[in-house]
Amino acid sequence: MKAFGALLLLSLIYVSSCHESVDSRFDSGSLPRPLLVESRKKVKISEDVALHCNSWRFAVEANNLSPWKTIPRECRDYVDDYMNGKAYKSDLERVSKEAILYARTVELKGDGKDIWVFDVDETLLSNLPYYARHGYGLEIFDDVAFDKWVDKGTAKAIKPSLKLYEELLKLGFKVFLLTGRTERRRDITVENLTKVGFHDWEKLILRGAEDKGKPATQFKSEKRGQMVKQGYRIHGSSGDQWSDLLGSPMSVRSFKLPNPMYYIA
Amino acid sequence: MKAFGALLLLSLIYVSSCHESVDSRFDSGSLPRPLLVESRKKVKISEDVALHCNSWRFAVEANNLSPWKTIPRECRDYVDDYMNGKAYKSDLERVSKEAILYARTVELKGDGKDIWVFDVDETLLSNLPYYARHGYGLEIFDDVAFDKWVDKGTAKAIKPSLKLYEELLKLGFKVFLLTGRTERRRDITVENLTKVGFHDWEKLILRGAEDKGKPATQFKSEKRGQMVKQGYRIHGSSGDQWSDLLGSPMSVRSFKLPNPMYYIA
Repeated sequence: MKAFGALLLLSLIYVSSCHESVDSRFDSGSLPRPLLVESRKKVKISEDVALHCNSWRFAVEANNLSPWKTIPRECRDYVDDYMNGKAYKSDLERVSKEAILYARTVELKGDGKDIWVFDVDETLLSNLPYYARHGYGLEIFDDVAFDKWVDKGTAKAIKPSLKLYEELLKLGFKVFLLTGRTERRRDITVENLTKVGFHDWEKLILRGAEDKGKPATQFKSEKRGQMVKQGYRIHGSSGDQWSDLLGSPMSVRSFKLPNPMYYIA
Repeated sequence: MKAFGALLLLSLIYVSSCHESVDSRFDSGSLPRPLLVESRKKVKISEDVALHCNSWRFAVEANNLSPWKTIPRECRDYVDDYMNGKAYKSDLERVSKEAILYARTVELKGDGKDIWVFDVDETLLSNLPYYARHGYGLEIFDDVAFDKWVDKGTAKAIKPSLKLYEELLKLGFKVFLLTGRTERRRDITVENLTKVGFHDWEKLILRGAEDKGKPATQFKSEKRGQMVKQGYRIHGSSGDQWSDLLGSPMSVRSFKLPNPMYYIA
């Protein structure tokens, strides 16, 4: 019984320290912190579930699914593991690397009209701490709670995207940011982006009053259409949603970042 | 030494029986055979290589790579394992299931103009035996050798696609087949498709003399354009290449089947 008591005590200490580390990771935003937390508890995922959830994730990333509101219940731990383990980081790095390789082959005219379009959430900024507290996409999206998180302005940079971003500026591209966030969140978005290292963008386009209710594909295509009308050449586009990338006009090359947590039509 | 001799003998028997099973799997085509061979030797793939090749495959399937001619050398065993293990089959089944779910929601007008477009190779027919003999995409594509394989007419059906195909016909869709194979291979293509269960398609469109040299995206978009001009409504499109799916006009919904073995621009 003594041994059992000691074990119980140790377990309780372990659980409470876990909670503490989780909370401190999510709530304080002033100190630099790694985007990915490698040292969290490993959940055992069975081979069958992994196979099934892998196929689901492939279907997500290849845009084979109908619009979906939540991740499959049985894939919650799988998504947790994917997002917080090595795989998400590795996938992000690969996309960034491919985009850089392509960007270096583009011949710029030097008239300031060669551009690259970035989405913001899950493309430049990571909302992983928010989604970690909401089941990694298992809960139906709650815009009020999400906006509260956004208003903290503590989202971290997605490092491989920051690397691409800096390389593009060095190469002479102009950078456009095109986000589904609304104009009301312009200031906090600028503050958050700047704080984590993004700078010198040409334009930050948010949803205005006239864009309310438009599907993302339509809103973003219209904005790309305006860029093209203004003489810009969209060589590359980076986004974690297909609605960032599809629709007319499209960028010459599109780069789909991984995101198995949510879907925006 | 006796034990060593016996071990050696056993190894040789094992190796020769492996070769035999591989050859018989590839060369004779008259008996029904499973597409996926589960019982082959397992190659040990390190965690690092798996992580790296997974990210590469994600980049392939999300269309993030520049046109590529061969798979990464270090991913050869990974691709072998993916194609011959459970993952490819599971991924194919998921895509088929999603396509069927969508197809059932489409309201058909009943005028014979509601259609679905299928690619052929790696969409309806599997050339896995050919690619298995050519390093799963590690060797540069050899059109002469590939045409010889096609001329055998022994490609197996991709079963999940056959299921979708049959469901579409039942629902009342007309089916168009649109392939990069040339008109010279019309007869063998019809023979092969029919033999493995595909039937009653509305039209089989192959590359004609006028399509020579056109990139696949252009060729297939032009053909979809002609369908639309003729009053057809393209509700769905299935293909293993993004060049089967992208370009204008696009299908209402597109379904990307997995293919980590080759890329067609």
